[in-house]
Amino acid sequence: MSSSIPVGILGATGMVGQQFIALLANHPWFKVEWLGASERSQGKKFKDAAAWRLANPLQDHIANKVVEHAAPGNAPKLMFSGLDSSVAGEIEAAFAKAGHIVVSNSRNYRMVDTVPLLIPEVNADHLKLLKAQSEAQGWKGSIITNPNCATIVIAMALAPLRQFGLKTTVVTTLQAISGAGYPGVPSWDILGNVIPYIGGGEEEKIETETLKILGSLGHNKIDNHPARVSAAVTRVPVQNGHTASISVGLEQRPSVEAVIDAWTSFRGRPQELNLPTAPPQPLVYLHEANRPQPLLDANRDGGMGVTIGRARPCPIQTLKFVAHGHNTIRGAAGAAILNAELMHREGIL
Amino acid sequence: MSSSIPVGILGATGMVGQQFIALLANHPWFKVEWLGASERSQGKKFKDAAAWRLANPLQDHIANKVVEHAAPGNAPKLMFSGLDSSVAGEIEAAFAKAGHIVVSNSRNYRMVDTVPLLIPEVNADHLKLLKAQSEAQGWKGSIITNPNCATIVIAMALAPLRQFGLKTTVVTTLQAISGAGYPGVPSWDILGNVIPYIGGGEEEKIETETLKILGSLGHNKIDNHPARVSAAVTRVPVQNGHTASISVGLEQRPSVEAVIDAWTSFRGRPQELNLPTAPPQPLVYLHEANRPQPLLDANRDGGMGVTIGRARPCPIQTLKFVAHGHNTIRGAAGAAILNAELMHREGIL
Amino acid sequence: MSSSIPVGILGATGMVGQQFIALLANHPWFKVEWLGASERSQGKKFKDAAAWRLANPLQDHIANKVVEHAAPGNAPKLMFSGLDSSVAGEIEAAFAKAGHIVVSNSRNYRMVDTVPLLIPEVNADHLKLLKAQSEAQGWKGSIITNPNCATIVIAMALAPLRQFGLKTTVVTTLQAISGAGYPGVPSWDILGNVIPYIGGGEEEKIETETLKILGSLGHNKIDNHPARVSAAVTRVPVQNGHTASISVGLEQRPSVEAVIDAWTSFRGRPQELNLPTAPPQPLVYLHEANRPQPLLDANRDGGMGVTIGRARPCPIQTLKFVAHGHNTIRGAAGAAILNAELMHREGIL
Amino acid sequence: MSSSIPVGILGATGMVGQQFIALLANHPWFKVEWLGASERSQGKKFKDAAAWRLANPLQDHIANKVVEHAAPGNAPKLMFSGLDSSVAGEIEAAFAKAGHIVVSNSRNYRMVDTVPLLIPEVNADHLKLLKAQSEAQGWKGSIITNPNCATIVIAMALAPLRQFGLKTTVVTTLQAISGAGYPGVPSWDILGNVIPYIGGGEEEKIETETLKILGSLGHNKIDNHPARVSAAVTRVPVQNGHTASISVGLEQRPSVEAVIDAWTSFRGRPQELNLPTAPPQPLVYLHEANRPQPLLDANRDGGMGVTIGRARPCPIQTLKFVAHGHNTIRGAAGAAILNAELMHREGIL
Repeated sequence: MSSSIPVGILGATGMVGQQFIALLANHPWFKVEWLGASERSQGKKFKDAAAWRLANPLQDHIANKVVEHAAPGNAPKLMFSGLDSSVAGEIEAAFAKAGHIVVSNSRNYRMVDTVPLLIPEVNADHLKLLKAQSEAQGWKGSIITNPNCATIVIAMALAPLRQFGLKTTVVTTLQAISGAGYPGVPSWDILGNVIPYIGGGEEEKIETETLKILGSLGHNKIDNHPARVSAAVTRVPVQNGHTASISVGLEQRPSVEAVIDAWTSFRGRPQELNLPTAPPQPLVYLHEANRPQPLLDANRDGGMGVTIGRARPCPIQTLKFVAHGHNTIRGAAGAAILNAELMHREGIL
Repeated sequence: MSSSIPVGILGATGMVGQQFIALLANHPWFKVEWLGASERSQGKKFKDAAAWRLANPLQDHIANKVVEHAAPGNAPKLMFSGLDSSVAGEIEAAFAKAGHIVVSNSRNYRMVDTVPLLIPEVNADHLKLLKAQSEAQGWKGSIITNPNCATIVIAMALAPLRQFGLKTTVVTTLQAISGAGYPGVPSWDILGNVIPYIGGGEEEKIETETLKILGSLGHNKIDNHPARVSAAVTRVPVQNGHTASISVGLEQRPSVEAVIDAWTSFRGRPQELNLPTAPPQPLVYLHEANRPQPLLDANRDGGMGVTIGRARPCPIQTLKFVAHGHNTIRGAAGAAILNAELMHREGIL
Repeated sequence: MSSSIPVGILGATGMVGQQFIALLANHPWFKVEWLGASERSQGKKFKDAAAWRLANPLQDHIANKVVEHAAPGNAPKLMFSGLDSSVAGEIEAAFAKAGHIVVSNSRNYRMVDTVPLLIPEVNADHLKLLKAQSEAQGWKGSIITNPNCATIVIAMALAPLRQFGLKTTVVTTLQAISGAGYPGVPSWDILGNVIPYIGGGEEEKIETETLKILGSLGHNKIDNHPARVSAAVTRVPVQNGHTASISVGLEQRPSVEAVIDAWTSFRGRPQELNLPTAPPQPLVYLHEANRPQPLLDANRDGGMGVTIGRARPCPIQTLKFVAHGHNTIRGAAGAAILNAELMHREGIL
Repeated sequence: MSSSIPVGILGATGMVGQQFIALLANHPWFKVEWLGASERSQGKKFKDAAAWRLANPLQDHIANKVVEHAAPGNAPKLMFSGLDSSVAGEIEAAFAKAGHIVVSNSRNYRMVDTVPLLIPEVNADHLKLLKAQSEAQGWKGSIITNPNCATIVIAMALAPLRQFGLKTTVVTTLQAISGAGYPGVPSWDILGNVIPYIGGGEEEKIETETLKILGSLGHNKIDNHPARVSAAVTRVPVQNGHTASISVGLEQRPSVEAVIDAWTSFRGRPQELNLPTAPPQPLVYLHEANRPQPLLDANRDGGMGVTIGRARPCPIQTLKFVAHGHNTIRGAAGAAILNAELMHREGIL
């Protein structure tokens, strides 16, 4: 199948937008045909509107594409959104209203009852909310979201632990600077430093989104998973890759080996359907004592694999471990692309 | 009072040894008169035996002092030890046996029943163990230890929480590279990276030492505090300053304000006695949302102050917060010097 | 002498402004009595107008001082300016016109004929231009400038080489991120990276300012030194301290030892007058093979000392060496303070 | 053509050895069949002998291969050597004597008269030295070397400038930490720092190797290019990618455009022969003002492309510019592999 499905990108000049462009450069199904951005960029060629900040060379056909007004009209039906949350609310709704499928990385609609907050390996069935969304919103199209970049890593690592009676999760994250976009974190603040805070309600997102993701499909909404999450976030001088130090309380007392087996045998719809962006094994357990690490593990399986290590008993709760994932791929642009791939194969596009 | 008390330094050429030399350069009581190190360095001038790695310029009288064999003999009575734990056990015992007061930063004797594991603000009364130590070991001298560099920061932040019924502590640390000594962590491993592991039983030290420090004087030993601690440690690309993300479970439910007040009003013997190295306020609470940070806060009060921030309710336990301290000053050489100052003023030297 | 001379700071909330405040906190002569900044800050207390970004704690009397409109009026006669060059031209002129002595770190007036571009150790006599300035500008006050932060380090290292017939200087700099102010360089651009470019004409400043600094007092202007300078600048992930890799062509062929002697014996008016901020020895030569380095050497003598190392023959020109200095102290705020100290002792204030 | 040529790796467990293994993982011609290392590793499986430090996952068939004694015997004819220079001299000679073709990254034989110091794009004809080598050394096999990791980048950028009469080159390098191997540079020395020195005669290598590389085939040796080179090297906190700030003196006065054209049109034997590891365009000129940069440009064309930018007139010599290349790929393992590819296609293996 050649890349025959045209897609558009909202917020194309930003960091997430650039990551969309880079990841879709050789996609077997999707072809970037439309770029939308803020007024400042409209009418300019992409290469003149955006300073390309990724190591992958920018393709000529994108470089010379003219950036459009971020409004429905001539845009393709399938839209990826990397819009800043300050503007995403209005623009994404306009597109959904006009019949577009908006696959969004923004936070604005994540916690809306009828909006799927999707990790295809974890809760592919949450797509069934779309019918209710259509009724509730009166949109001809729809909005589908992926979680916050740190939440994804944590939720994927927790998903297989539900079988052991997941009750509590205490997590401290060490998050990469790319999570803050561009220009993002000033070097004066982070070079040789750590900052024990991330604005925009980062901790609350982790504490609330996780429970929706792990929840089950209810009546026109998701019934949250009953576990509780406590998050403390930090920014560290790492370019890409969020690390989470996690302690969980479980109802059962599985052996460490049983938990590792639950992680490594975990598969979902993306693996069943062999989606192009799906990692063959979503959760990889590393037995070396000092892993996972951003530099060595963030790019596993094209940045879509989540790595776990250091599983050991917790003197207070049940189990401690470390999880890691690439925040702008698995945690943002790659997550949205996998969502779209799932929808395409499930016949929803 | 001029600096009239001669002191020696064991392991003088190492990172902790160099930090001892730097901190004692202008000490009002103690004067470095003797340097001991491994065979490789003996007989050389200090400047030829050690590559000075600190920004404070090395004083000439130290630079030209000849490094001695690390054995009792002509060494002063008061000895600071920054020896590597692979050799500290034997050498420190030899000095204690020969009548020296060994104020040690090494881990070897920390958990021995009759050895004080001292943070003068927290457990100055543990010095009373020395009588039992003398009887148990038959030494003419004695050994006094300070805790692990991460433990000190955590234990100091926990000390005032005992009044609220401290039950559980879940902590993830973000530790500076100077904690690993020199050459320590290769840059290939840590530049733009984090490592979720520190060797040498770092997590176990935090989990066990903390309870001895917070414990109470029993019969010829310390009765551990009944709380439990769960530690997960990480190494981050920070030069100096260990950060701890902490969640505690308390029996009582004090308000955040009451806890902050407990921290900021906390004082100990070093403050009563106005010891030269004592910070005026051992625990400083920072109200800015993004503090404490290594670059801004590690050097507070000459590196002896511990800073705390971000106190907020924990959805699972009682309270979350962040604590920070300078790992080679408050967490190592400065800690030992404060221990010696306390002993001097308590008449034990 | 107590700190009896009131001073004001223009651009007080910026990085250079904050550095002025930090360096003047315990100054024996100057006392900060007035803070001026842009409209956004006026009328607010300093602590509310500025996010304090230095490790030195902010003094209470500054924290609570109300920030004023950056215009003459009730400001002290002596004004330090850390204004951004986009606004410095107009504001500094207004103050000079109104009779203030403006000791400026901004680039706007540096190359104006009758404005001293001062490094007190190098060209204290250039202060004599002020008479011509007064005539040319018709100002009741005056403007005195210090050089660009990289230029200062280079010019100080070159000054003693004039005696050997300095002809050519090829220099590549490795500049710290603090030189770009705040927020300055995004961490995404510089973490684990180097950028071979600095905007704002950095290379041209080095190439032109250096020759004025090393020049001699002519008729109502400085006659440039006849040497030529070629500069290539880079930004490196260093917090403070600019490093310069320099190759010089000299008319004479002095031995390396003779050059080192010229550097280490170099003194100027600040040392003669024993000015409070003056380093006892402006140029310190380090004989270790791997020095100077930012982490170890930037803060020498309170950040006012320039360190030099690695002097060796150049196969193409005459001599290669490395020079280093603290860019926000010796290269900015400290430079301006030393300028003001010189003027005070020379009776010009 | 399937990968049918067996190759061995000397120094397989080191950083360059690991890079050889990673780069040959999917090579169309060469297949790693033999691993040799020091006594400490012999007889162990590779995965037990070496801590794999690259992000590319280690292939199973390499992981389980037993490491051999680093001596001829059952090793393949074609050997890549990443041996430390302390042992490379003896071992490489033993292999050459025994009939092996040793394609070495070590410095030991680079400057020997009859040993090619090869950059296939620049001096493919230097392979003709091998006949003289055979006569001079009496070896059944031979040794071919690639230059020092910084030299390669510089020499490639200079090669097209020979047509303009290259006379002088003044260069300051900013070199990545991976150039120092593992454990290499301690993080304490380089985190947030730069070191203006690299041991092992780095500057001399650049100054001498460059002239042999750019030289012409003489009688049983290379006649050095008559230019002169002056090098100053620094280490910077960058993981991969050496940057060189270069000023050249040329006999002619070409326009900047003519020089850029000489770079971008430069091709060599690897491009003619379409060698598997050859970059399509060896020298890529980047017109953005702030390029090349390690993070964005080191991995171009699989790490084999050299990027150049910032060409502009030099006020002292003729032209200034910046060159950049991946030090462990184009500057080490990839360079040796390209050398072997050239030899294979030239019928020399």
